[in-house]
Amino acid sequence: VVFYAMETTIPFREAACAPEVTDGATLYAGVADWIISCLDRGIYKVGDRVPSIRSLSTTLQVSINTVREAYDLLERRRYVECRPQSGYFVLKAPPPSIPERNVGIQSLNPREVVFCRICGEISGRGGSVAANLAVAMPDTALLPVKRLGAMIADAMRVTGPRVLEYCMTPGYGPLREQLARLSVAAGARLSPDEIVVTNGCCEALYLALMATCRPGDAVAVESPLYFNLFQMLKELDVRVLEIPSSPRDGINLDVLRFAMANHRIAACVVIPTFSNPTGACLPEARKRELVGMTAEAGIPLIEDDVHGELCHSGSRPPSCKSFDQSDNVLYCSSLTKTLGGGLRLGWIAPGRYRQRVERMKSLMNVGNATLEQMAVSRYLAEGHYERHLRSLRVALAERVEAMRDLVAESFPEGTRAARPLGGFLLWVEMPEAVDACALYDLCIRESIVFPPGVLFTASGGFGNFLRLNGSLSGPEPERVVRRIGELARTLSRSG
Amino acid sequence: VVFYAMETTIPFREAACAPEVTDGATLYAGVADWIISCLDRGIYKVGDRVPSIRSLSTTLQVSINTVREAYDLLERRRYVECRPQSGYFVLKAPPPSIPERNVGIQSLNPREVVFCRICGEISGRGGSVAANLAVAMPDTALLPVKRLGAMIADAMRVTGPRVLEYCMTPGYGPLREQLARLSVAAGARLSPDEIVVTNGCCEALYLALMATCRPGDAVAVESPLYFNLFQMLKELDVRVLEIPSSPRDGINLDVLRFAMANHRIAACVVIPTFSNPTGACLPEARKRELVGMTAEAGIPLIEDDVHGELCHSGSRPPSCKSFDQSDNVLYCSSLTKTLGGGLRLGWIAPGRYRQRVERMKSLMNVGNATLEQMAVSRYLAEGHYERHLRSLRVALAERVEAMRDLVAESFPEGTRAARPLGGFLLWVEMPEAVDACALYDLCIRESIVFPPGVLFTASGGFGNFLRLNGSLSGPEPERVVRRIGELARTLSRSG
Repeated sequence: VVFYAMETTIPFREAACAPEVTDGATLYAGVADWIISCLDRGIYKVGDRVPSIRSLSTTLQVSINTVREAYDLLERRRYVECRPQSGYFVLKAPPPSIPERNVGIQSLNPREVVFCRICGEISGRGGSVAANLAVAMPDTALLPVKRLGAMIADAMRVTGPRVLEYCMTPGYGPLREQLARLSVAAGARLSPDEIVVTNGCCEALYLALMATCRPGDAVAVESPLYFNLFQMLKELDVRVLEIPSSPRDGINLDVLRFAMANHRIAACVVIPTFSNPTGACLPEARKRELVGMTAEAGIPLIEDDVHGELCHSGSRPPSCKSFDQSDNVLYCSSLTKTLGGGLRLGWIAPGRYRQRVERMKSLMNVGNATLEQMAVSRYLAEGHYERHLRSLRVALAERVEAMRDLVAESFPEGTRAARPLGGFLLWVEMPEAVDACALYDLCIRESIVFPPGVLFTASGGFGNFLRLNGSLSGPEPERVVRRIGELARTLSRSG
Repeated sequence: VVFYAMETTIPFREAACAPEVTDGATLYAGVADWIISCLDRGIYKVGDRVPSIRSLSTTLQVSINTVREAYDLLERRRYVECRPQSGYFVLKAPPPSIPERNVGIQSLNPREVVFCRICGEISGRGGSVAANLAVAMPDTALLPVKRLGAMIADAMRVTGPRVLEYCMTPGYGPLREQLARLSVAAGARLSPDEIVVTNGCCEALYLALMATCRPGDAVAVESPLYFNLFQMLKELDVRVLEIPSSPRDGINLDVLRFAMANHRIAACVVIPTFSNPTGACLPEARKRELVGMTAEAGIPLIEDDVHGELCHSGSRPPSCKSFDQSDNVLYCSSLTKTLGGGLRLGWIAPGRYRQRVERMKSLMNVGNATLEQMAVSRYLAEGHYERHLRSLRVALAERVEAMRDLVAESFPEGTRAARPLGGFLLWVEMPEAVDACALYDLCIRESIVFPPGVLFTASGGFGNFLRLNGSLSGPEPERVVRRIGELARTLSRSG
């Protein structure tokens, strides 16, 4: 089957006025985005004055306050500066963004995943790598090391021998209570009993796939998608059916609907909020639609929400799970992207697959390590997490923006980066002449590691893409990114 | 196929003299065992004087010193007391032991495992259980809580942010170096590069099975065997072929050889040193034979060595891995039985399956939690582990012996317990009239949990057996065991 699909949604910045909130972000973030789109189109250039708060409020029919908040956000991201008594002036041209484009021709046949050498190198014995931009974890400088350390030391002192005892599946009760409360902000209202603690989100996804698929099955996944998921599907002998996903709005539901009508699909896997690698966020209405259509077809929906908390502005977008009325969504998440991967604290709310997931987890490794569960449940209960998230969101928004600038500066002409509304991953499209795998091979000789775009699909494609960790900051990461850009330039000239 | 197999080895205590060392234990432990067998047979009764050191030295043709050490051991276990100038006198009759018996009729066809309700209850949401004798972990009172706690607090303070970073598969280098050194005592000389850190031994076994078996395959296992292994095989859709194992000498190699000749076997799973549940130890020569015959047939041998360090006397028996010259043994172990299950620190040395095991582990959950790996590697490096093991071994020997006495006192007439030479699990055979599942159901009403014998096989049988945790001590465990015994008595009367 060859399928021609057109991206049917009009990107919000194309709208004449009245920005709609296409994701979970609040209105002012939408307004900020609308202003950036004016810079994108060259309507205002560096040094120009942009419309006043009052006039924009009239144009877009939003409150004065909303426009003021939007300009505050743009100031923090150094797009504009405020000159007293004069208004706001453009400070920089936005780095080029990957456009919303027609998804083009996609072969919609399930295919086998092949083993990927680079995935092995990236995920495996990476101890000797000097600069690892492949690890999808925020800069540890942004993590609450001291506070968590104190909680861990306390847990050890206070609970003593209990730390050495097993903490059986489904996991430490007080931790599950706190995770249940976290789900409220995502609109899902999970009960602690619905939650199974796992070793990170990876294990949650593995359990979800084990519970829903059998060897030989086909699974629909958005594409591009987190590379380990493809390798996991390979190990489970499951074929993939890739559904194109745009860098802004996520998976194309029309193509998915077509695929569902024409193939037997065992499960559907998406990262609907701040996707890995693109940072795309599926708009709320489409999340609802996705949940509805998969439930109706009886196809379990596996949701990876690992970046869900990391909105750059506004409030946290709702999860697909929040629209799940038939226990059809297997919700997977972790604290890796907010508190650190070394804790190995993830969880799954497996819906109607709970029994099988619990049994599998219990047989695979009995349960998670006890200490981290105790310490982190107290960290959450005492409210430190909410405070930490607030500052982490602001920092990530700024750092991702800075990384976009750095890429624009140092990569070959024609390079474009996604503009994620959350998370910290940066999906970069280089000119077609640049083969990201060749670039990878040049970089690894200098102990610099990043995942090239081909890893994020099983169908070929994304040959000139790569993913960076936009949370990194400081002289060394800056040197490394510049060096990748420099090597990419040599490839673009020789290509 | 129905197979009549005779247990061909002569149990060592049947030998007229010159005790051979059938396991890795030293000579004096063999001599002690020989003396106990004299009590077993009623040759000496309580209050009797046993042969002098000098005369026994002549009879058994061992040194004076060896006999003295044997009597020291028996004194510590309160079998005999030394009266100055008079010699050694019997203090108690040994509790009845499960005899080495003919393995009887075994149907040697691969069979599907069925899901077991009780396994789910035991391994799952066990938080509300008052007295859990099902958990196979030593009493935490015997674990180095303080020292480990200090190491964990230190690791947190010294290494700071690194604790929050991923520790990718195959695991923390310094920990693998220490685990490699541990393997020397078991005769295996693993290099750190051969070792993959896992979430406990369970995950090691799961990975070993994932690497060697596919759905529909048949796996040979010793029987009885750790119940979670059967459930794991069920989840992996693998059939089992049970090879009888005696409570003293372990798996019957004649039956295994017959099975191998008549069936296609994907892997062979054994717990050759202090088996779970029986505590049996496969003698060194037979370990060598087992490794040789499986290698020759190209059948990977999965060795669970989780109790290997816990010899009650003498030196640690060698692992099967130590005889492996063709990378055919997948060696699985953990620190659960010596430092506590809450750490989730296990490892696997997968031999020629290393690549696949590493890839699977990396995909399943990236790696283990970082903190425990750092803290425990230092604990090992500083020599605390060796000292801890020395005292733990003595304590477990005494406690298991005390538990045997308690069972003899409180269980129905005719009850017999295995006499393990290591570990802390106690395999108990009640009179045939007592159905251990009925007993389980009575006990769980009083929040008392233990695994009945039927869990340790997929073929039926062991209906009147149960497994206890012999490491527990103190008024509450004593009350609980007495209560199980009391309920068993009522069942034996009504049966």
